[in-house]
Amino acid sequence: TVDRAIDLREAERFVRLFHEENPAAGDPRPRVREVAGEIARHGTYTHTYEELQFGARVAWRNSNRCIGRLYWRSLKVRDRRQVRSAEGVAIECVAHLREATGEGRIRPTITVFPPDAPGAPGPRVLNEQLIRYAGYRDADGAITGDPRYVDFTKRVRAHGWRGAGGRFDVLPLVVQTAEGGRLLCNLPGDAVLEVPIVHPEYRWFEELGLRWHAVPAISNLCLEIGGLCYPCAPFNGWYMGAEIGARNLADVTRYDQLPAVAERLGLDTSTERSLWRDHALVELNVAVLHSFERAGVTMTDHHTESARFLTHLAREEKAGRVCPADWSWIVPPISGGVTPVFHRYYDNRALTPAYVHHR
Amino acid sequence: TVDRAIDLREAERFVRLFHEENPAAGDPRPRVREVAGEIARHGTYTHTYEELQFGARVAWRNSNRCIGRLYWRSLKVRDRRQVRSAEGVAIECVAHLREATGEGRIRPTITVFPPDAPGAPGPRVLNEQLIRYAGYRDADGAITGDPRYVDFTKRVRAHGWRGAGGRFDVLPLVVQTAEGGRLLCNLPGDAVLEVPIVHPEYRWFEELGLRWHAVPAISNLCLEIGGLCYPCAPFNGWYMGAEIGARNLADVTRYDQLPAVAERLGLDTSTERSLWRDHALVELNVAVLHSFERAGVTMTDHHTESARFLTHLAREEKAGRVCPADWSWIVPPISGGVTPVFHRYYDNRALTPAYVHHR
Ligand code: HEM
Ligand code: HEM
Repeated sequence: TVDRAIDLREAERFVRLFHEENPAAGDPRPRVREVAGEIARHGTYTHTYEELQFGARVAWRNSNRCIGRLYWRSLKVRDRRQVRSAEGVAIECVAHLREATGEGRIRPTITVFPPDAPGAPGPRVLNEQLIRYAGYRDADGAITGDPRYVDFTKRVRAHGWRGAGGRFDVLPLVVQTAEGGRLLCNLPGDAVLEVPIVHPEYRWFEELGLRWHAVPAISNLCLEIGGLCYPCAPFNGWYMGAEIGARNLADVTRYDQLPAVAERLGLDTSTERSLWRDHALVELNVAVLHSFERAGVTMTDHHTESARFLTHLAREEKAGRVCPADWSWIVPPISGGVTPVFHRYYDNRALTPAYVHHR
Repeated sequence: TVDRAIDLREAERFVRLFHEENPAAGDPRPRVREVAGEIARHGTYTHTYEELQFGARVAWRNSNRCIGRLYWRSLKVRDRRQVRSAEGVAIECVAHLREATGEGRIRPTITVFPPDAPGAPGPRVLNEQLIRYAGYRDADGAITGDPRYVDFTKRVRAHGWRGAGGRFDVLPLVVQTAEGGRLLCNLPGDAVLEVPIVHPEYRWFEELGLRWHAVPAISNLCLEIGGLCYPCAPFNGWYMGAEIGARNLADVTRYDQLPAVAERLGLDTSTERSLWRDHALVELNVAVLHSFERAGVTMTDHHTESARFLTHLAREEKAGRVCPADWSWIVPPISGGVTPVFHRYYDNRALTPAYVHHR
């Protein structure tokens, strides 16, 4: 895609959308002509800051897998389109984390680096999220840390990174630029807020030694706006507890903590009919929510967020827009049937601007 | 659809499928010619018992919403195509319940009544399931019983049925025939096995006064085989606990019991972050599974059933068949992310024979 010129119709469609939703911007036609001229001359064009901000926000609004879209207008957009070096990208990712973390008052934020242009690909961050934990497979095949990142960990070790070998070692950033190859960069400790997981009632819970990072910042999706592709545009919201308590720490292919929690709870794990998994799942999620609250870190629960999402849906309909949604991603992985988002269907069309999986 | 002749291509497709999967039946061509001749003469044709049995079983195999398909070959098919009167249908539905209930050893069973034919619609049962509970709305709008059946209850009351006004009054069967109008028929008590819901640890649980029927028997789907439509073909499996514990007794639009359970558990219902809904949901489901086991009534849990479904899927693939599945129905409404069926996608195409919603 890097070598193709930008699709003029995509660009025009976006410019018209921008002007439609921002009446103060006036008649779209002069801007459409301008963009067409730029594309004719250079094969690409440059968004104004207002267009970029609008595009990033609408891409969130269009994220059919995201339950957290009620506050899509509040996304803070950091324009770093002038930053091209790997070092510059790493520095700005660290700055993003510091600003977005806000000592716990988490702020939905995106940092946008240069787009792909004909013959000039933009920089990329190879990590799935800015903050994730290493996974180490030992000689017997046993895994310490996050099994999801065993391959990624192996690759950064091949590039010379040395992890401590623990369960929660923050992985280094890997930045790739067309000119400079790959840069590995450890995140400074003060850029990574973490929360130890404890339980409001069970003292033994902290002995499980669990923790999680405060900020989920997806860094491997392309931001597509008006035919332009920004391959490096890490964004973050705050966590919904279930992402940690019902997926990252619970999945058998991730930290797989339900058996350990069930054992400490004294549950009968010899039969599925005791629902020991379900019991342990609830206590793990209670612990996650409690721990973030205790640490003063923004987090939502799946009930509150489901209700918010329906508010969002109603607002979007009132604004005359389709709110695309993917049922299987919107319905939480715990107590699905008990959340109001379960009991309806959604329109799941793909709209742009969008965050897309390109790699 | 009643007045149209049967679609010959559908009939032929089915006959070929039957012969393909039943090599002992030999060359399909003579049977295809026979069926074509019948349709040419009468606008319809008659399935052999073997075809009917195969069709009903394959319709189960094709039920993309059903997690319980591993045992699709074991469906017991009761051929009642000669029963046309409303009384006869009612009697056979009662016999179906007695046989399928088996004093708790539940047996997947279907009873097939006459198909629709040109100018001669088959009989119909208007109930959604053979056994369901009435719902009564009083003058203040408060509902006693199952809110889902308030309208149905109103209609049978208009036809002269008198319910006791309780929370678990079994609704009468309503049978409709083209000739005879509607027949209301109370199910005899010994045809309706019920299970009082108690908890293995909490004695107070039985004070909630909950119960549920042992046999889920869907009675408002059409069985479509080879272009023929059997509008009255009630079928039953056994329950997966979550259908009762996470839907019928839990949904806010059904029995809505989570607040009552949470209160008795002493949970903090002033905030969603205590996950009181999730806690109460688990205990309600534990109670349902325990109660059925104690009563000696067949029931599966969502973990076991998820694993079985993946076994079924693997078997179907090995047999060279697509196993169509609808993710949003297959993933259980409780602890979805903890079940293995959550972590993959499915092919959701519509195959026939099938059980279809026509009304
Ligand atoms: C503000 C708080 C937010 C909450 C509570 C929230 C919640 C969620 C949740 C629960 C998921 C599903 C994650 C999973 O199952 O792996 C999700 C996915 C997603 N969210 Fe949000 N979100 C938030 C902010 C944002 C922001 C700021 C953006 C973009 C600007 C965004 C875009 C997305 C996208 C693109 C996905 C799909 C990711 C993928 O395909 O892997 N969200 N969100
Ligand atoms: C043997 C035990 C069985 C189990 C454990 C089982 C389980 C389930 C479950 C959990 C559902 C979803 C119900 C809901 O969410 O409302 C379902 C739906 C369904 N099942 Fe099964 N099932 C069984 C037997 C059968 C049989 C014998 C048939 C037909 C011959 C069948 C056909 C269907 C169909 C057609 C649906 C969709 C119903 C609808 O659209 O409302 N199942 N099943």
